Amino acid sequence: MEQFDLIVVGGGPGGYVAALRAAQLGINVAVVESTHLGGICLNWGCIPTKALLRASEINHMLHDLGTFGFAADNVRFDLDKVVGRSRAVSKQLSRGVAHLLKKAKIKVFDGRAKLVGKQGDAHRLSVTKDGKEIAQVAAKNVILATGARARYFPGLEPDGDLVWTYREAMVPKEMPKRLLVVGSGAIGVEFASFYRNMGAEVTIAEVADRILIAEDAEISAMAQKAFEKQGIKILTSAKVGPLNKKDGTVSTTIETPSGKTELTVDKVILAVGIIGNVEDLGLENTKVKVDRTHILTDEFCHTDEAGIWAIGDVAGAPWLAHKASHEGVICVEKIAGKSPQPLHPLNIPGCTYSRPQVASVGMNEEKAKASGRKLKIGRFPFVGNGKALAMGEPDGMTKTIFDAETGELLGAHMIGAEVTEMIQGYVIARTSELTEAELKETVFPHPTISETMHESVLAAWGEALHI
Amino acid sequence: MEQFDLIVVGGGPGGYVAALRAAQLGINVAVVESTHLGGICLNWGCIPTKALLRASEINHMLHDLGTFGFAADNVRFDLDKVVGRSRAVSKQLSRGVAHLLKKAKIKVFDGRAKLVGKQGDAHRLSVTKDGKEIAQVAAKNVILATGARARYFPGLEPDGDLVWTYREAMVPKEMPKRLLVVGSGAIGVEFASFYRNMGAEVTIAEVADRILIAEDAEISAMAQKAFEKQGIKILTSAKVGPLNKKDGTVSTTIETPSGKTELTVDKVILAVGIIGNVEDLGLENTKVKVDRTHILTDEFCHTDEAGIWAIGDVAGAPWLAHKASHEGVICVEKIAGKSPQPLHPLNIPGCTYSRPQVASVGMNEEKAKASGRKLKIGRFPFVGNGKALAMGEPDGMTKTIFDAETGELLGAHMIGAEVTEMIQGYVIARTSELTEAELKETVFPHPTISETMHESVLAAWGEALHI
Repeated sequence: MEQFDLIVVGGGPGGYVAALRAAQLGINVAVVESTHLGGICLNWGCIPTKALLRASEINHMLHDLGTFGFAADNVRFDLDKVVGRSRAVSKQLSRGVAHLLKKAKIKVFDGRAKLVGKQGDAHRLSVTKDGKEIAQVAAKNVILATGARARYFPGLEPDGDLVWTYREAMVPKEMPKRLLVVGSGAIGVEFASFYRNMGAEVTIAEVADRILIAEDAEISAMAQKAFEKQGIKILTSAKVGPLNKKDGTVSTTIETPSGKTELTVDKVILAVGIIGNVEDLGLENTKVKVDRTHILTDEFCHTDEAGIWAIGDVAGAPWLAHKASHEGVICVEKIAGKSPQPLHPLNIPGCTYSRPQVASVGMNEEKAKASGRKLKIGRFPFVGNGKALAMGEPDGMTKTIFDAETGELLGAHMIGAEVTEMIQGYVIARTSELTEAELKETVFPHPTISETMHESVLAAWGEALHI
Repeated sequence: MEQFDLIVVGGGPGGYVAALRAAQLGINVAVVESTHLGGICLNWGCIPTKALLRASEINHMLHDLGTFGFAADNVRFDLDKVVGRSRAVSKQLSRGVAHLLKKAKIKVFDGRAKLVGKQGDAHRLSVTKDGKEIAQVAAKNVILATGARARYFPGLEPDGDLVWTYREAMVPKEMPKRLLVVGSGAIGVEFASFYRNMGAEVTIAEVADRILIAEDAEISAMAQKAFEKQGIKILTSAKVGPLNKKDGTVSTTIETPSGKTELTVDKVILAVGIIGNVEDLGLENTKVKVDRTHILTDEFCHTDEAGIWAIGDVAGAPWLAHKASHEGVICVEKIAGKSPQPLHPLNIPGCTYSRPQVASVGMNEEKAKASGRKLKIGRFPFVGNGKALAMGEPDGMTKTIFDAETGELLGAHMIGAEVTEMIQGYVIARTSELTEAELKETVFPHPTISETMHESVLAAWGEALHI
């Protein structure tokens, strides 16, 4: 039985960050990871998709060179190289995580961990590899950071060949000519954007009445319009029928309120949500509560079982790497007896890296209205911004929502070029409970698209200058 | 004699914004502009250069396609189209300013204004066009926003043919094969970056001992290294000798501490600073004080003459459009009897849009040290950032400087991709006097390059996770 102060189960962005912070605080910590250090995010999620989306932006640019005064003949890409670069970036970062853990002298067990009981106030875990126990470990504190996996519905199961999850979608051997993406959250939309910009015919089917349902409705409508302009076909309030596979294609019927659409495609990508990895952790031997595949915790990530914590995707929405890693830090600081601030869900930004990009933090207009507050809402379109025009990126908008009485920034919603890099300004503002006064007073640099952030604030208070 | 509450002399970013804000506040305002609405910034500065730099980024990308798995043959550009697009963007925005002023019912005089005396408590101005008086106007308040122009030194004068200012440099008829840029502030460096990325051989001569002298020395050194890697030749502590023109080329001798360099080029761009446009304004009839071509004001932009205000470049450094427009707002709000906050020079960001980009706010390390404070300094390299790697942009750094005792963010310095859009987060932080505590607590979205902003803060306090 190897003893530690803390054992982190899962080496994704929540888990490895928790371990690194623990080591900084002098906690004797070990990580158990069965597959990839860096988790889905780094190996099969955020990071490799960004490399793919970079390629699709380049392909778009190569087919729009005339706008900028350029020309080229015989424009082409080598899909193996595009995918290869994406894999290489993931590999580099995964090795980076291994290196960071090693540098911090954190022991990593290559296996799966299961809670098998207590010994005094320590939790015991059995670590297995391919079903064989490779270690017995114990620690007073255990952080569960086992992540989540794609959810499927009956009749809509992946087969790894014609019907893909994010996993196959990220390593295509050839470009599908026709593609159906089921689901229009960030993952579905990013794949739709990638494949469309690389030349595929793409249809999105979304069960809700709009795409990017987590976003502000106005932003979601602008995104839909932009995608449709690019030739993506979007069906909302859509029910996808059984998938009929024949001769290497998939046919299905999609029902919407306006009728039925018969569709035959080469590949289907399923992106309809995720479920937490709560199985085989031995939770049945603990007081840990699970609600619909997610572990319940308090605001410091502590479960109902003393010494057992849960962070990241397995602990519930929003399923975002930065939420996971921040929870990792909070939870470890709490274990170390420090006084971290709890994570406020409305201060966690969300980003979608499609073309156009979407980024937001805080309440959308609907929720802000539902909160019963009097609101001030400002909008500023990119077409009124000099840098956006100079970049050839006139399509976009920044929208801010304030409490009319207190001036609190309730939410910020952006669509267009570079917004994923800009949203942090509003996140800083929300985290620090800033009001319109400080944001008005801030001198945003000219010429930048970030000036739309300022103008949007001014607009909310009737003081916009450039509209 | 036409009477107004306020006359704004100059229609650049300071002037027209002041007028728009005045109209919002119900002030009867007129603008006098002799040349271009939008001023140098919009017509011959910030905006058209950004369009050119966009083109040079595209050209760079087109010559680096293999890295991303792409290829194309016969890559080329049509310089007339590249320049034409840049001019079109300027024209669109200048028309936009005219439209905004018209919509706000602001009268615009197409001429030059000169203070010619007082009538009661109103200042009288004579407006002339081509030397002929076209109007007499009067107002209790006058804002001077006449901007600045390029400075020249004896022996280093532009001739519009072989020796250029920013003006000719922005509308090249053909690409120079060999180019000398004298001066390495933002303007010089941006032109060097544009021409180099479009294929020219470029030499920068800088009289100071480093380029981008306004920036942190460490950032400046990184920029120099990056430019040199791209093939730009950089001579610092350099004295440029007389320019000898012969057969359509320019030869000169550049002296540096390490010896003399003989250089022959096709074009020279002079970018050695600017002087304020203080002539022919009738200032001699007022108490307005001028120090080395710049009008002296108090912190609300008021001069020593009651009712006369000065904003933007003519009122001194930093010579930045966003400083000018912010001063326009402050000064008009003061005139309207409101209580604006004065502009704090250390809260004004500076941006250089070269490849790599540079952006900063607040004190650099040297100044922070000179202030006598105990410092905490954090650095985070882009190579440790997943998004930067995914984008193929591993060269860059974010550096933050804190007061070790109070936690105040004293300065932030960034170099690399997209930093000009990111710096606003730190500007918000500085304007709101945030400390490391709020910045640590902020959840930066993953994966973004803006995460380097978080890591740099953590690094300053010994808590960086990814290095």
